[in-house]
Amino acid sequence: MLQVEEKSIEMQRTAKQASKVLRVESMQKDIVRVEYAVRGEIAIRAEELRKQLSVSPNSLPFTRITNCNIGNPQQLAQRPITFFRQVAALVDYPDLLRSESDLFKPDARERAAKYLAAIGSAGAYSHSQGVPIVRREVADFIEKRDGFAADPENIFLTAGASPAVQLVLNSLISHPKVGIMIPIPQYPLYTASIALFNGTAVPYYLDEAKNWGLSKEELARSLAKARSEGVEVRALCIINPGNPTGQCLSLENMNEVVEFCKKENIVLLADEVYQTNIYKPAERPFHSFKKVVKSKGPEYDNFELISFHSVSKGMVGECGRRGGYFECTNIDPEVMAQFYKIASISLCPPVHGQLMVGLMTNPPKEGDASYPEYRKEMDDIYQSLVRRSNTLAKALNKLEGVSCNEAEGAMYLFPTITLPRKAVEAAKALGKQPDDMYCMELLNETGVCVVPGSGFWQKEGTWHFRSTFLAPENQMGEFAESLARFHEKFMNKYR
Amino acid sequence: MLQVEEKSIEMQRTAKQASKVLRVESMQKDIVRVEYAVRGEIAIRAEELRKQLSVSPNSLPFTRITNCNIGNPQQLAQRPITFFRQVAALVDYPDLLRSESDLFKPDARERAAKYLAAIGSAGAYSHSQGVPIVRREVADFIEKRDGFAADPENIFLTAGASPAVQLVLNSLISHPKVGIMIPIPQYPLYTASIALFNGTAVPYYLDEAKNWGLSKEELARSLAKARSEGVEVRALCIINPGNPTGQCLSLENMNEVVEFCKKENIVLLADEVYQTNIYKPAERPFHSFKKVVKSKGPEYDNFELISFHSVSKGMVGECGRRGGYFECTNIDPEVMAQFYKIASISLCPPVHGQLMVGLMTNPPKEGDASYPEYRKEMDDIYQSLVRRSNTLAKALNKLEGVSCNEAEGAMYLFPTITLPRKAVEAAKALGKQPDDMYCMELLNETGVCVVPGSGFWQKEGTWHFRSTFLAPENQMGEFAESLARFHEKFMNKYR
Repeated sequence: MLQVEEKSIEMQRTAKQASKVLRVESMQKDIVRVEYAVRGEIAIRAEELRKQLSVSPNSLPFTRITNCNIGNPQQLAQRPITFFRQVAALVDYPDLLRSESDLFKPDARERAAKYLAAIGSAGAYSHSQGVPIVRREVADFIEKRDGFAADPENIFLTAGASPAVQLVLNSLISHPKVGIMIPIPQYPLYTASIALFNGTAVPYYLDEAKNWGLSKEELARSLAKARSEGVEVRALCIINPGNPTGQCLSLENMNEVVEFCKKENIVLLADEVYQTNIYKPAERPFHSFKKVVKSKGPEYDNFELISFHSVSKGMVGECGRRGGYFECTNIDPEVMAQFYKIASISLCPPVHGQLMVGLMTNPPKEGDASYPEYRKEMDDIYQSLVRRSNTLAKALNKLEGVSCNEAEGAMYLFPTITLPRKAVEAAKALGKQPDDMYCMELLNETGVCVVPGSGFWQKEGTWHFRSTFLAPENQMGEFAESLARFHEKFMNKYR
Repeated sequence: MLQVEEKSIEMQRTAKQASKVLRVESMQKDIVRVEYAVRGEIAIRAEELRKQLSVSPNSLPFTRITNCNIGNPQQLAQRPITFFRQVAALVDYPDLLRSESDLFKPDARERAAKYLAAIGSAGAYSHSQGVPIVRREVADFIEKRDGFAADPENIFLTAGASPAVQLVLNSLISHPKVGIMIPIPQYPLYTASIALFNGTAVPYYLDEAKNWGLSKEELARSLAKARSEGVEVRALCIINPGNPTGQCLSLENMNEVVEFCKKENIVLLADEVYQTNIYKPAERPFHSFKKVVKSKGPEYDNFELISFHSVSKGMVGECGRRGGYFECTNIDPEVMAQFYKIASISLCPPVHGQLMVGLMTNPPKEGDASYPEYRKEMDDIYQSLVRRSNTLAKALNKLEGVSCNEAEGAMYLFPTITLPRKAVEAAKALGKQPDDMYCMELLNETGVCVVPGSGFWQKEGTWHFRSTFLAPENQMGEFAESLARFHEKFMNKYR
């Protein structure tokens, strides 16, 4: 009886859904096709477990969820930079400028007053391309970083790097056979956006054995294969430092990439959001692609490059602000006018995100009242990232069948895991990828949330996961231990 | 010689552009096709004039640009609500919570502490659908407003209403013959987005003679015409209160709309961002479509409605924060899961925008320490908007050939202008719409920037412009006078 009733409810439900206008079956296909693993099944399960813990704290074999699935430093207790937040608070509530509070140093007051004079209020829409004086700050930062001129008119402030990458990919993909070369493994923003705009992802593989190195032979192979399939390759995406793979490109390698793009008439998209997360600065310092292109002289004056940066990463970690920029190098001004038009439909990027871009690119300088504190906060976060990255890499490399390159940059480790055949078969029986199953079991048993390698794409027959090394330093020991315990149990279960 | 040189430079330029990969000709066509008038040619010209004034203040027949082209209250000196900004500043810089500053009332401190406990830091990514406690505040607000339950799981926080409308339209438009019914005149977000997603705009006309009223006969005519052309009409957009037209729908009219959508199996999209800009509350109070649908009983339990709101309008006017929400009523949960997935690619809406949504929907209440100040600030802004709206309507109605409905709601007047035949011919000779020409001359001679009616679409052979009534009250007299002087001169010139 109960069964019959349930069935009837189910049928009613189905009939009700079927009569709807807006259904998954009738929705825009490209939207439905998109996959986005960083916030996929495992992240949703983590959210459920978090809710369960908040209701009944003792109902699970762990007491908290550790979100290592996403580069979200301030979620994991990284403190914001004081100067940045002081300026933000003063801009929010200008009465503080008129108060005598000794909480605020004079340079913070000056900067807030300067921003207020330029924008009027943080509650006003700004120029759709971004506040002009912030674009000037960005241009100055780029000039200083690279030694080559930068023009504020070529800079677009955005709500983080993700919508910026999406705008550019949307513009490039004019038919389904437009190809965008992406590294494998990649940050899933790229595969998701290419699917959303109905283009073709053209994978080139990074070489795990060579610390996730990039070879020009592999670029050539990838391009030739795509072209042989009738794909019109228009752009090459590089993530440097790499996400999820953490490598930094050598100058030599970057020159090869630029020469490749020039020869093949391909736009270079440089995702450089981790440019200050550089952990081996002597061997592998950061170089921008802008600098590499400009260094090559007038022959490259027509070389099309778009570079992305963000306030969400680095030691700034202001993800929730949604701030970023992209710089256009040798992009047709008429195309930039189109970018502007599309940006203007959403009116403007969040003003607080824009100001954070200004603060990140124009921080306190030696001699400024806030400089010592700023310097110390940046250095402390940086040193802690180095330590945590090393601790986690060591812990991972101790696990049976796990091997992990050290991070040269970014915020992630991407260990390879060699799984027993029985685990692979068990996953298959569940209709899952083996690393999906591994990560789901890890979450259910330890509360640690990482992203399976399948979400980033990977060489067939290899399995990985991506973990940030952002967990608070005092939790790193516990984190490594519970990972080791889980891993041993998992391996024994499927041996 | 000079000419030859110029030509050669021009040819070089053209060759250089032509060799680029990313060109307007090769870009995604839908992007290129989009028109967006609010920030179009006239807004760009206004920006140029503003720059000119900052360099040489006496070089033009006016001393400042008055931006009446966009509903951007705080750009025009509307002050933000103190309580909102206090909470924002405390969240930005929590050290202020520990300070003894008497600038902050206890309820502002409490609210900031509550938000901080929930989000950790304004610098952390939040849940992609929005901070759960803010969604709870929104649901409570809706319940109180309408008298019907609201579920936080059906609410998505967004970076303002514009990206929310875009996400929904993108989902609905699965092929080029999907039709979206839009009012004419409309806010160009709609035509721009429908073009961007390659759907079909299905216009229904508002009746200017009946104070921009909406008739069910016109809806039926519009739908029948679209269907006869093979268009699959999936959604009806209503902007209430109207933009650019400022009317408020009667309850009777809203019931007709809902009945129409049910009968015709059409999703209703209710743009209600001006719901507190209500200037004739006795005759034309605001009713939400959610309430109207819920009032109609169980027969409407499957009625698909999506409602939009924003922190940018009302007396809040926090445009630069980029905050808003949409509420799904009877939308298939699987479709909402798709919305969530797409939202998650951009990680999360700006956290400060989200908190502003919480503050707007859950402001200080009677008895709270900040209530008297909050109440006074809201009332002052409201009363001033009423006065400015009346002043501007009166001034416009005095002009020869100009006729203007009073605003029942929103922030705009949309006068009709009857132009001399010679003006129409002069515009034609310039390849422009007559109201484009009128608005450009108005800008060049007075510094007042309004948007031509053509940007909103309008009944053929009629001409309008949209002006906000947000100019500061002490400038309204001067504004009206220079408008009158310009108009007389223009009419005489083309008589």
